[in-house]
Amino acid sequence: MNYRSITYILGWIMRVEGAFLFLPVIVALIYGEEVWTVYLASAVLTLAAGTLLSRKRGENFQLYAREGYVAVALGWIFMSLIGAVPLWLTGDIPRFVDALFEIISGFTTTGSSILSDVEALSRGGMFWRCFSHWIGGMGVLVFLLQIIPLSSGQTMYLMRAESPGPSVSKLVPKVRKTAFVLYGIYIGMTVLEILFLLLGRMPLYDTLCITFGTAGTGGFAVYSDSMAGYGPYLQIVVTVFMFLFGVNFSFYYLLLTKRVKEAFQIEEVRAYFALFAASSVLIALNLLPQLGNLADSLRHAAFQVSSIMTTTGFATVDFDKWPEFSRMLLVLLMFVGACAGSTGGGIKVSRVLMYTKTIKKELAFLVHPRSVKVILMDGKKMEHTVVRAANIFLITYLGILAVSVLLVSLDGKDFTTTVTAVITALNNVGPGLSLVGPMGNFGFFSDFSKIVLMFDMLAGRLEIFPLLLLFVPYTWKK
Amino acid sequence: MNYRSITYILGWIMRVEGAFLFLPVIVALIYGEEVWTVYLASAVLTLAAGTLLSRKRGENFQLYAREGYVAVALGWIFMSLIGAVPLWLTGDIPRFVDALFEIISGFTTTGSSILSDVEALSRGGMFWRCFSHWIGGMGVLVFLLQIIPLSSGQTMYLMRAESPGPSVSKLVPKVRKTAFVLYGIYIGMTVLEILFLLLGRMPLYDTLCITFGTAGTGGFAVYSDSMAGYGPYLQIVVTVFMFLFGVNFSFYYLLLTKRVKEAFQIEEVRAYFALFAASSVLIALNLLPQLGNLADSLRHAAFQVSSIMTTTGFATVDFDKWPEFSRMLLVLLMFVGACAGSTGGGIKVSRVLMYTKTIKKELAFLVHPRSVKVILMDGKKMEHTVVRAANIFLITYLGILAVSVLLVSLDGKDFTTTVTAVITALNNVGPGLSLVGPMGNFGFFSDFSKIVLMFDMLAGRLEIFPLLLLFVPYTWKK
Repeated sequence: MNYRSITYILGWIMRVEGAFLFLPVIVALIYGEEVWTVYLASAVLTLAAGTLLSRKRGENFQLYAREGYVAVALGWIFMSLIGAVPLWLTGDIPRFVDALFEIISGFTTTGSSILSDVEALSRGGMFWRCFSHWIGGMGVLVFLLQIIPLSSGQTMYLMRAESPGPSVSKLVPKVRKTAFVLYGIYIGMTVLEILFLLLGRMPLYDTLCITFGTAGTGGFAVYSDSMAGYGPYLQIVVTVFMFLFGVNFSFYYLLLTKRVKEAFQIEEVRAYFALFAASSVLIALNLLPQLGNLADSLRHAAFQVSSIMTTTGFATVDFDKWPEFSRMLLVLLMFVGACAGSTGGGIKVSRVLMYTKTIKKELAFLVHPRSVKVILMDGKKMEHTVVRAANIFLITYLGILAVSVLLVSLDGKDFTTTVTAVITALNNVGPGLSLVGPMGNFGFFSDFSKIVLMFDMLAGRLEIFPLLLLFVPYTWKK
Repeated sequence: MNYRSITYILGWIMRVEGAFLFLPVIVALIYGEEVWTVYLASAVLTLAAGTLLSRKRGENFQLYAREGYVAVALGWIFMSLIGAVPLWLTGDIPRFVDALFEIISGFTTTGSSILSDVEALSRGGMFWRCFSHWIGGMGVLVFLLQIIPLSSGQTMYLMRAESPGPSVSKLVPKVRKTAFVLYGIYIGMTVLEILFLLLGRMPLYDTLCITFGTAGTGGFAVYSDSMAGYGPYLQIVVTVFMFLFGVNFSFYYLLLTKRVKEAFQIEEVRAYFALFAASSVLIALNLLPQLGNLADSLRHAAFQVSSIMTTTGFATVDFDKWPEFSRMLLVLLMFVGACAGSTGGGIKVSRVLMYTKTIKKELAFLVHPRSVKVILMDGKKMEHTVVRAANIFLITYLGILAVSVLLVSLDGKDFTTTVTAVITALNNVGPGLSLVGPMGNFGFFSDFSKIVLMFDMLAGRLEIFPLLLLFVPYTWKK
């Protein structure tokens, strides 16, 4: 383990976070809130400390897979610890563990909140909370890769450790250029959503916050009733953009480079769309007796499916009160999640697709044991190592799920609350069912459960292994 | 597909079932119940039809992997359809779909019942229902292998399709001999339990029924309150025997051949024991405030852990009313199940052990990508194909779990009921939580849900693939 490289990366992460912390300073100043002083102090101190740490790379600088994982995991933990401080010091969230939960939920784009009264937050604090989704969505290290002076191999290790999905698809041969293109698309789509929401006369402040939540597939909203208070136009715009941010960004890159046919042939994107359409229709039909007309049923169904599949977590209605079939389908969609290479969480459509193909292949194999079958994805043979990694991911994911529900059950809440709280945390969704339903919050959990859920949120965002490696003794050997 | 071999095997299965159907005839006669006529007719007709079907093997007799799977899957379905008839015709269970659910629950050693008033059954019917556990526990085909004239390769295909666990461990080189040893141990332990229960003055009838339920790890009891009405001695005897029937039978074979040290070195058995002990202690501590004294807490904890882990499903208390931690731990144990090569269900301890080792190996691999790591089990390197099969099993298992909960959710029961009903069916446990808790039953489900759960029970008992192959078109090609 090369410790110098870790502190160097951590320093850079702090520099970026410090710079971002100036945004809530501006917001607080505009609204004439005292909290600007706290954010300013946080920004300056973080920036200074970060600059100090990343001033020199040192002589024995080395960055391999191991350092990449550790830097990313520690980077996210540090970023969260720092990000929680102003929320806590301003009194917006009086307990530090709650502030930490809230900001981890923000950075990991989960969107679960411990707040029962979201509206009571300062405007500056609210902005920082929502903006954390935007930072976490595409990833702070992917952002860093564009400015930090590292070799191509080194950036790849960082990219791989932070990017979700079974394999990192480099859009262009160079990692740095890929990161640049990704952020370009990300910013472009963010701007587009802002315009569409402003067109629908959403206040600018709300527009920015809601857009950050959509772009990062986070789900923090400005009001306790999430998106229920906005009109149909705004709800539909958000439905569409949530869906779009859950698409594999390769799709947009292909579109931008005018390879439209290729773009629409990406199997993951097709499966994602099919799953969205089928689930929306099924839930709409299931809701029809309750809501009375098909248009409303479809609108609410599509919004909630888009929100849950992309692991955003906004809500226009209290789907905890929906019929059991709709609730169950939403819970299952939490596991599936969005496309790899998007800002969404969950197991990812591409992995689920891979699993489905694995089952089909196995059935063929059992009938004809001597047949040699390969798994094809987008017409290409899947690498054995990718399939293997996807299997191991699933096993580890289930292990963490099992341990987490057991630990959270110590709080003695009902089965549905306990199970869906962990599911929603691990998949970075936001709301669950029962007490943690879309109109509930996570404030009632014990600190112990909150820590477990924080771990799950980070594990979900970083796809488990970077975080787990921190607990393996030989990771730390020199 | 060689159809002649399928009908031949089906014929043999019917012959065996026909013979077994004489047992309830005797019981009904002893108790002077009219139902003996129905059981006699069923026995004779089944025996006759079976003999007719299996009279000749035909000229083109072939039995490969594919035929093995299909014969086993169809065999279990046929056996269940036939077994349900007398329960239905005697009026013990007035609806056929209910009778089918009950007997599938019996043969698959699940033990979930649609009956709200178990005591109302005829003594003959009750006996048949409980005896179905004993038949299903070790497997009707494993029984058949000893009498049916097949080559060694052919018997292996059948054995592999019916036996649970990641790989079939042949105790002795010959499959037929292995089947003989397995049934020898099975019968020996059954007799032992009968003796111990009689010693505790349990009535003979109860003793037989409870022993069948224990040996097959089934869980049908003679009373609606399961084992709550029996005294501590009887409960402890059953605790011990449930545990023993959940041990890999290789363990007993090694003991019998005086390889004691080897026996106790089987990793699966050690993990199984450790898991049992740890879970019992944790639950006992969790129960202490509710029950007041440690002895009672430990007794109830150990009984329920033994019952759930081995997927038997007896209960001495209504654990649905236990604290959330205990309930959750029991639900997680349902997934783990018992040892491979035992009569218990679930994912099996050996697979869970394999998964744990996979995670450990992966973490080491991530730190040192160039290290070559193998998974060791009992000191030997695990075959790649076995690890791969265990992974695919898990993926398929989860797929069935997901589809099943979604289908059962159409009934509109609460989340806990829906989820645990499927978990308990797929793992062949018996009771779940909430409405399907140990003091509840499955009678309220719609016929559609019952069919889904029947599928799950069969899928769980046959470890999915034999059953799934029935739905693959190319299985049926000549």
